[in-house]
Amino acid sequence: MDARHAATVRLETIVSLAKRRGFVYPGSEIYGGLANTWDFGPLGAELKRNLKNAWWEYFIQRREDMVGLDGGILLHPRVWEASGHVEEFNDPLIDCRRCKSRFRADTLIEERLHRSTEGLSLDEMTRLVQEANLACPVCGVRDWTPVRKFNLMFRTFIGPVETESTPVYLRPETAQAIFVNFKNVVQTSRVKIPFGIGQIGKAFRNEITPGNFIFRLLEFEQMEIEYFIRPEMWEEYFDHWLNEMGQFLRWIGFKPDRLRTREHGPQELSHYSRKTVDFEYFFPFGWKELCGLAYRTDYDLRRHQEYSGEDLTYFDQERNERYIPHVIEPTMGVERLFLALLCDAYDEEPAVDVNGNPYTRVVLRFHPRVAPYKVAVLPLLRKPELVTVAREVAQELRQYFRIEYDETQSIGRRYRRQDEIGTPYCVTIDYQTLEDRTVTIRDRDTMQQVRVPISGLVEEIEARLRSA
Amino acid sequence: MDARHAATVRLETIVSLAKRRGFVYPGSEIYGGLANTWDFGPLGAELKRNLKNAWWEYFIQRREDMVGLDGGILLHPRVWEASGHVEEFNDPLIDCRRCKSRFRADTLIEERLHRSTEGLSLDEMTRLVQEANLACPVCGVRDWTPVRKFNLMFRTFIGPVETESTPVYLRPETAQAIFVNFKNVVQTSRVKIPFGIGQIGKAFRNEITPGNFIFRLLEFEQMEIEYFIRPEMWEEYFDHWLNEMGQFLRWIGFKPDRLRTREHGPQELSHYSRKTVDFEYFFPFGWKELCGLAYRTDYDLRRHQEYSGEDLTYFDQERNERYIPHVIEPTMGVERLFLALLCDAYDEEPAVDVNGNPYTRVVLRFHPRVAPYKVAVLPLLRKPELVTVAREVAQELRQYFRIEYDETQSIGRRYRRQDEIGTPYCVTIDYQTLEDRTVTIRDRDTMQQVRVPISGLVEEIEARLRSA
Repeated sequence: MDARHAATVRLETIVSLAKRRGFVYPGSEIYGGLANTWDFGPLGAELKRNLKNAWWEYFIQRREDMVGLDGGILLHPRVWEASGHVEEFNDPLIDCRRCKSRFRADTLIEERLHRSTEGLSLDEMTRLVQEANLACPVCGVRDWTPVRKFNLMFRTFIGPVETESTPVYLRPETAQAIFVNFKNVVQTSRVKIPFGIGQIGKAFRNEITPGNFIFRLLEFEQMEIEYFIRPEMWEEYFDHWLNEMGQFLRWIGFKPDRLRTREHGPQELSHYSRKTVDFEYFFPFGWKELCGLAYRTDYDLRRHQEYSGEDLTYFDQERNERYIPHVIEPTMGVERLFLALLCDAYDEEPAVDVNGNPYTRVVLRFHPRVAPYKVAVLPLLRKPELVTVAREVAQELRQYFRIEYDETQSIGRRYRRQDEIGTPYCVTIDYQTLEDRTVTIRDRDTMQQVRVPISGLVEEIEARLRSA
Repeated sequence: MDARHAATVRLETIVSLAKRRGFVYPGSEIYGGLANTWDFGPLGAELKRNLKNAWWEYFIQRREDMVGLDGGILLHPRVWEASGHVEEFNDPLIDCRRCKSRFRADTLIEERLHRSTEGLSLDEMTRLVQEANLACPVCGVRDWTPVRKFNLMFRTFIGPVETESTPVYLRPETAQAIFVNFKNVVQTSRVKIPFGIGQIGKAFRNEITPGNFIFRLLEFEQMEIEYFIRPEMWEEYFDHWLNEMGQFLRWIGFKPDRLRTREHGPQELSHYSRKTVDFEYFFPFGWKELCGLAYRTDYDLRRHQEYSGEDLTYFDQERNERYIPHVIEPTMGVERLFLALLCDAYDEEPAVDVNGNPYTRVVLRFHPRVAPYKVAVLPLLRKPELVTVAREVAQELRQYFRIEYDETQSIGRRYRRQDEIGTPYCVTIDYQTLEDRTVTIRDRDTMQQVRVPISGLVEEIEARLRSA
C-alpha cells in the first residue's frame, strides 16, 4: 500500500473505528463534549502505554548517555519569562465584530487570501484583511477587529483566592523542566557531555484548534529529549538524532513511504531554534508534522542563567574548560504518533471467511511492540470442556502479556474482531487440545495457523514478539 | 527492623538522600522553588515508572475483569457539579487579619485547641477560635476573620480571553473520567459486571499543604480503579479489594509491620462514600494514610445520569434486569507510595569495607520490581582491557534491563553507591573475566558474590528478578 492509497483511507473511517473499538472517545461525551478534548478507552490506553514504554526503552534504557526526568506541570512563573513563552508563545487572532466568531488570522489569510503570513507583523496582517475586504466565513459581514496576539499558555492560581494568589501556567512544553533541573542532574548523576535528559509528560496549549481528530489538542503528552553537547558539535549530533528518530519510527512499525523530512524556513523557526527539521507523515488530511528535531543552541540555559542568577555552565574535564552546553532537541507527541500509527496500521483486504464467503477484512497491522493486546485466547466453541482449558491458558499468559480472553460469538467473528484491533496472535483451544494439549497460534498478517504445545506457549510467543 | 526502629529514620535523612542521589529535587529550585512542587530526577523518574508499571501489571494485565482508561485532565465543568466537587470539595480556611497568614481552621483547632472538628459547621469553628481567644501562631495577635470555605479545585480557562472563555477545572481526582466514560466502555469493550476500569494520571488540589516532603502535593499522580458491581454484593467485593490492595503492597516490597488498616468514622467519610478503609503507613512523621478503599455506592453514576440526562444503567443479562451498578474504589497515589517505599527500603547497618575498615552501610532495600536500576555493570579497575569487556556486557544487558555502567572511583565506593540507590545486582568484570569469560554477580542484600558466565548472564538476572 503506497502513499497514494493511504489518501483513500478517510479520517472518518479511523475516527469511527477508534470510537467503536474503544481506542478514543470524545471527551466528556455525555455532557455534549468539550472542544478538542478526547479520552482514551481501554485499547487506546494500552496503545499509549506501549508507545511511551517503547520510547523509554529505545531512547533511555538502551542508551548509555541518557537519563530520565519527571518534572512538574506547574513550574515557577519566571520559568516562562526566561524561556520566552510569556513574550513569544502567541497566536494572532482576529474577531468578526458582528457574529463574534474568532479566527487565527494567519490561517484565515493563508486559506482565504492564499498569501503566506511568514514574518508579517500584526499590523500587516490587519491591513491585509482590510485591503482584501475579506468577508467573515461564518456570517459574511466585513467588520473585523484588528489582529491581536493571544498567549497560548493556560493560566491558573496557586492559593485559594484568585485575586491574591500566585498565577502560574500549565506548561506548554515539557522541555523547560529539563533545563531548570540541568544543574541538579549534573550534580547528582555523574553524567558527562554529551548526554541527554528525557521526559514524558502532559503539556497544555490553549489553541483555537482546527480539528482533525486528535492531531492537535489542548492537552497532550510529549516525549522530549534535551541532548547537551559541545557547541561546535551541533551539526554532527543533529544528524545523529535525525537518524535515531527515523530508526525509532521504523522500530515501532512505521512504513518509510509515508514519512519524509522537511526543514523549516528561516521565518518559520521557533524563537529558540536555529535549525528545525520536521518528520512529516502522510495523514488522511495530507503531509503534516509528525515530530521534530530542533537545534536550540544555548538559548534556554543562557536565559535561565540570566533570569535565575544561578551558574548553569558546565565544566568539561577533558578540555579543562567551562561553557554553557548547546542543545539538540528531539520531540515527539504521544497522541499524534498514536493517530499516525492508527492510520499507518489500517488496512483492508479481500478475504474469505470460515464458511467460504468473501468479505472485506479490516486489519490494524500494528507492530507487536505497540499492539494493545499481544494475544487473544479463544475457545473454538463455548463448551465447558474447551472453556476450562482456555481459561487456564489465558490465566497463564496473563502473567506475561497483555491479553484478551473471548468466548462469545463464532470463531470467525472473533478472529475478525482481533484483526480489527490489531492483535498479532490468536491462540485457539479446540477439541484436539483436549487430546494432546496443543493449541493453534494464528498470525494476524499471514492468517497462517500452527499447532504448539501449551507447555511451550509462553516461550513461543516471547520468541515471536522478540523477533518481530 | 520494626516500626519502633523506623521512627528513628528521620524524614530529613530521606529528603537529603533523595536530593543527593537524584530521586527528588525541589520544584523550580533555581528560581527559589515553588511551594509544594517537586521534580523527580533520573532515579525518581525510574522508580515512579516502575511503580506505575507494577500497578498496571498487577491490577489490569493480570486480571480478567479489568480494562484501562486514559481520560483527560480537562473535563466538562458540569462533571464537577455532578460529582459534588463544586459544592463539597472545600477546606475551611481562616486568616489572621494582622499578618495575613492563612491556616486550615480544622488543623488549627485540632493542633492548638486539641479539639476534634469532625462535623462542625464553619460558624461553629469560628466560634471555637474566638471563644478560646486563640493567638495567631505566626504573629501572636488575636484578630481572626471568620472561617470560610475555599474550593480545592484549580480553575483555568479554555479560549484566549479569560473574561469570555469557558472556565474549566484541573481534575482533583481521576475517578470522574471513568464514570463519565462508563457507558462508552460498556458499549465498546464487552465487559460484564463485575468488572473494573483502571486509570493512572495526574490530579491537582489547590491545598494549603502541611509540608512533609512529597506526602501531600498540589500536583500528583493517582492510580484509581472503579469496580462496578451488583448493589447487594458490595461487602464481598469490599473485602476482596481490601485483600488485593494488601497483596499488591507486599508484591512491591512493603513490610507488613509498618502497614495497618483503619476504617473512617461516620463524620470523616467523603460526601460520596458509605464506607472507607485507609491503609496507613508508619511514616517518619507517624501513622498516616497511604492509600484507601471506598464504597462509593451508585452515587457517581446516579448523579451523572441526573446531570447529563444520559441513561447510565447497566443491563444484567444473567438476571435480565437493569440497574445502576454500585462501585468499589481502590485508590493509590504514586508519590505517596514512592515516599513510603523510600522510607520502607531505607536501612543502615554496620559493615566492613574491602580494606577491612568498618563503616555504616546505607542500603535502599527496594524490591527488584521497583528498584530504579536492576543492575550496575562495573569494571574492577579503569583499565582498557576491563573497560572494553565491561562496556560489551553493559550494552548487552541494556537491551533487557534498566542498568547503569560505572567505571569511576574504587570498586568499594561504587558498591556503596549502588547500595544507596537500591540496585539489587552488581556485575563486576575483573581479570578472571579476561581468562574465562565469567563475571561476578553481587547481591545487594546478602553482599554474596557468585561467578557466572557472560553467556548466561541475561538468563541468570531474569531468573533472579522473576523469583524475587
